[in-house]
Amino acid sequence: MGISLGYHQYGKAECHLVHVDRSTPVHTITDVTVTSQLIGDFADTHLTGSNAHVIATDTQKNTVYALARKHGVGTPEDFGLLLARYFVDGFEQVTGSRQEVNLDHWDRIVTSEGPHDHAFRKAGSEVRTCVVTKHGAAETVISGLSGLVVLKSTGSEFHGFPDVPYTSLVETDDRILATAVSARWRYIGTDVDWDKSFTSIRRILVEKFALTHSLSLQQTLYTMGEAALQAHPELAEIRFSMPNKHHFLVDLEKWGMDNPNEVWYAADRPYGLIESAIVRDDAPPAGTVWEGITGFA
Amino acid sequence: MGISLGYHQYGKAECHLVHVDRSTPVHTITDVTVTSQLIGDFADTHLTGSNAHVIATDTQKNTVYALARKHGVGTPEDFGLLLARYFVDGFEQVTGSRQEVNLDHWDRIVTSEGPHDHAFRKAGSEVRTCVVTKHGAAETVISGLSGLVVLKSTGSEFHGFPDVPYTSLVETDDRILATAVSARWRYIGTDVDWDKSFTSIRRILVEKFALTHSLSLQQTLYTMGEAALQAHPELAEIRFSMPNKHHFLVDLEKWGMDNPNEVWYAADRPYGLIESAIVRDDAPPAGTVWEGITGFA
Amino acid sequence: MGISLGYHQYGKAECHLVHVDRSTPVHTITDVTVTSQLIGDFADTHLTGSNAHVIATDTQKNTVYALARKHGVGTPEDFGLLLARYFVDGFEQVTGSRQEVNLDHWDRIVTSEGPHDHAFRKAGSEVRTCVVTKHGAAETVISGLSGLVVLKSTGSEFHGFPDVPYTSLVETDDRILATAVSARWRYIGTDVDWDKSFTSIRRILVEKFALTHSLSLQQTLYTMGEAALQAHPELAEIRFSMPNKHHFLVDLEKWGMDNPNEVWYAADRPYGLIESAIVRDDAPPAGTVWEGITGFA
Amino acid sequence: MGISLGYHQYGKAECHLVHVDRSTPVHTITDVTVTSQLIGDFADTHLTGSNAHVIATDTQKNTVYALARKHGVGTPEDFGLLLARYFVDGFEQVTGSRQEVNLDHWDRIVTSEGPHDHAFRKAGSEVRTCVVTKHGAAETVISGLSGLVVLKSTGSEFHGFPDVPYTSLVETDDRILATAVSARWRYIGTDVDWDKSFTSIRRILVEKFALTHSLSLQQTLYTMGEAALQAHPELAEIRFSMPNKHHFLVDLEKWGMDNPNEVWYAADRPYGLIESAIVRDDAPPAGTVWEGITGFA
Repeated sequence: MGISLGYHQYGKAECHLVHVDRSTPVHTITDVTVTSQLIGDFADTHLTGSNAHVIATDTQKNTVYALARKHGVGTPEDFGLLLARYFVDGFEQVTGSRQEVNLDHWDRIVTSEGPHDHAFRKAGSEVRTCVVTKHGAAETVISGLSGLVVLKSTGSEFHGFPDVPYTSLVETDDRILATAVSARWRYIGTDVDWDKSFTSIRRILVEKFALTHSLSLQQTLYTMGEAALQAHPELAEIRFSMPNKHHFLVDLEKWGMDNPNEVWYAADRPYGLIESAIVRDDAPPAGTVWEGITGFA
Repeated sequence: MGISLGYHQYGKAECHLVHVDRSTPVHTITDVTVTSQLIGDFADTHLTGSNAHVIATDTQKNTVYALARKHGVGTPEDFGLLLARYFVDGFEQVTGSRQEVNLDHWDRIVTSEGPHDHAFRKAGSEVRTCVVTKHGAAETVISGLSGLVVLKSTGSEFHGFPDVPYTSLVETDDRILATAVSARWRYIGTDVDWDKSFTSIRRILVEKFALTHSLSLQQTLYTMGEAALQAHPELAEIRFSMPNKHHFLVDLEKWGMDNPNEVWYAADRPYGLIESAIVRDDAPPAGTVWEGITGFA
Repeated sequence: MGISLGYHQYGKAECHLVHVDRSTPVHTITDVTVTSQLIGDFADTHLTGSNAHVIATDTQKNTVYALARKHGVGTPEDFGLLLARYFVDGFEQVTGSRQEVNLDHWDRIVTSEGPHDHAFRKAGSEVRTCVVTKHGAAETVISGLSGLVVLKSTGSEFHGFPDVPYTSLVETDDRILATAVSARWRYIGTDVDWDKSFTSIRRILVEKFALTHSLSLQQTLYTMGEAALQAHPELAEIRFSMPNKHHFLVDLEKWGMDNPNEVWYAADRPYGLIESAIVRDDAPPAGTVWEGITGFA
Repeated sequence: MGISLGYHQYGKAECHLVHVDRSTPVHTITDVTVTSQLIGDFADTHLTGSNAHVIATDTQKNTVYALARKHGVGTPEDFGLLLARYFVDGFEQVTGSRQEVNLDHWDRIVTSEGPHDHAFRKAGSEVRTCVVTKHGAAETVISGLSGLVVLKSTGSEFHGFPDVPYTSLVETDDRILATAVSARWRYIGTDVDWDKSFTSIRRILVEKFALTHSLSLQQTLYTMGEAALQAHPELAEIRFSMPNKHHFLVDLEKWGMDNPNEVWYAADRPYGLIESAIVRDDAPPAGTVWEGITGFA
């Protein structure tokens, strides 16, 4: 009937780093937020307060900036792998590492004089996400995106659901469909052209959302994921967490007015929530790498 | 030594409305969040709880949606004026109104088949803002934008400040300059092509931020505002509230590494904050219309 | 037809400072967030980029921490006055200053061994606010609180409002009344026992909210403010910005169930918004000190 | 090389419900936010858009409110179990359910006339959390709390960590230790006095945080968890996700001032992050019930 220490990891969260490539007068910037975590033999600090094995979280932060200077940042995936390998390969007490690298997008500003050498505008709230997990030699990369908010003003139906108790929703063959796509996809290996994969998968997701005539948000979601897996054999699976951002048609009949799907109230809460995985049947199993990633059960 | 009711206004805040123009198969959507407030003879409800004069805030909300159905939304400025006039002209006890109409931007999705008829992507977190104030016949329109995050990776200096007590900042002739532009400009009248003005002013602000070699954020700010006023005689003034989003060069010397302005730590708080107005000398005075607009003293 | 610089102020926003009084083994902590702004002769940095007059915002931040070491923090009002006087009295180019000092509350932790000497729990999200404005010798202190969320489960009615177009709200003699009180009060002078005033005013606001049988949120608000002014002759006025946080009774009739004010849906947006001032008739006028304080028109 | 649907669940998120017990004039309120999700045979809606099996998320929302009327809310754990059993036992296509029930705390307002019958103040931002997972007959309850922000102004050391590359942190035997406790504990069964367990565990966590002389946040965390498991045999394990909310001593030496641990800068990001589980050795394994709970790897 003992009590003992179970799984544990620790590190520095949300190190916000902007890297400027000044190798030519036309600068490029890379804006990442890194959460570094180490896994390994850290029982002592829990049980006795001895920190002899503890690589300070402050040191982890310094390492993020120092390795960015030494090697550049590159893609989130490459930077996450660089950090994970540095820690796991370099320290005996570190048996694993989890590196989360989220990238904010910036667009180059175009003025009347053309694209500007060193002025940028933040592109929005969409984030490119990446979680690298390394346990010993086993490395897993989960990439994704969040905050991709999309809406269709028609081309969405919802009907045929059973009239179980407490059902009052009216069937419709024309509604607004809106969601904020959070998607994460697990790669089979690490020999991948990360930027090329990301760009193509994102394009497929947006295109399938737009082109699918929707009978349910689940159907749209599946179509998006299936197409991504079909086009990208390097993917083992893709998971979605997609809110149904409800838009309710405003009832104006009591004042003698119709409302032919023109004026909508955009609601905040509650909201529908669809969480589904699309998997490649012969892909290697995920193990525990999805744990700790919220909203992707 | 009496105590009495002073200035008061009331209404419904943040009515989120999405209007779909379905007049052709190529839909357009207008996404606004409206805060409607009424000013007038509402002392009774404060003093006795009699609501005989009170146009319910629920009614104000319904009116927002009903007038959107009747007249469409159009520009934030036109919709704000429509609502303000409806309330002030239509009800004896209403002597004034404040209508805040904030617009979220959406881009049409482009697929491999071309621009989509009815699929859209939210453009980001930048918001087009508008506050219409009407007191009797006097109408004032203040338009603006917020959440325009911009950054220059060079072309920014900061030096020559006095070495007063508690000064430790080091002078620099090359730093990152980053800010989130919040700007609001007051129009002289209401006979304005609102979309044309907005688009041009926004373009000027972005262009001047990019093209100005900066000796201080204040200088950049003034250059932006001056150019907007010069190009737009319909403006009485423009006010800015601009954080200096600090990026600190990471010191890697202790580990024998240089850092020639490549690796930066992007800090959250505290941050610099510059609030300045640029005014046209012969413009009509603002009166009290700026009160209640945060961060624009 | 010239264009010129109008009102301007600048400084460092949100310096988060925790002061520990260790003069006895029983520590006390003071947790404030300070925004320091200077007003004065800063046209040059706008017009030419010359910073010869500019007390760097970094220096303002350092001053906040240094003066906290020299003098302690004490009340937000005293600390704001200390900072404003330091800058206005100490620098020729500084003619005015605005110091915003917001205080977070912490409670001492009580264990089985009694009140702990040096362990604390954050008391919640309620904030004690303070804005000190100094123009030359003229000093104004506006204190307040925000985030005080209160609710009455009965004892609130709303009826008697006119049936104007687009009215559909049903009259009620029993509803939930909930709000998040934001209140700010202006003192007549600066010779005040700040903690004593704050504690008493807060107690009055909470008590009047609870004890007033409400016919409208406006009536409740006025009762709260009137009582504060009556008990505190040191106040010139008090202003409120209070959302009506709607709770809607869930209609269960369609499933044969009643709902005698037991089960409510707590809505987010839109919400009612009541903004009103209660003033002492013979108090000195406010001038411009309320500008830039959001939601207090 | 097929592609198929993997794990999926769907439902309605963040149904905000306030229940008023009016059985006596002394009301009590229960404020919960419920996310209801169903697991089962929902492949068709993904693959073909057929919704014949889909219990609409709107119906799930209605059910939350209707069951609250029928049975009251009670504890988050009981309400989550009630909902999970209703769905899993009542519908053939539903094989499992996940019910997240988060509770906001309210205190009764005490006026000069004593405790008020029906007026309440929101107690803060601390939330009591609960996730009920039911797969067929197997039920798991994970309870917890989040947003419990605590601080020690002394009694915390951190030293003895190795001087690996990129280490610059200085050892200290006296620092501020501050964190926002997020804890979740898994019960072995469901025959539990939920309120009694919660109250006792919360008291233990706060007390151990206060009374432990800390050599590392990990040590404090382990002490808290071990004590909870020792006192509560009904617990299988407890997991923590605790940020190290850094407070940095401000260096005032350059201006000839000392700073004997009195004036601190409270930083936002980055922050340390400690995630650890304390487990009872002979407890039943968790299976997959932790998946989808963020920050608890």
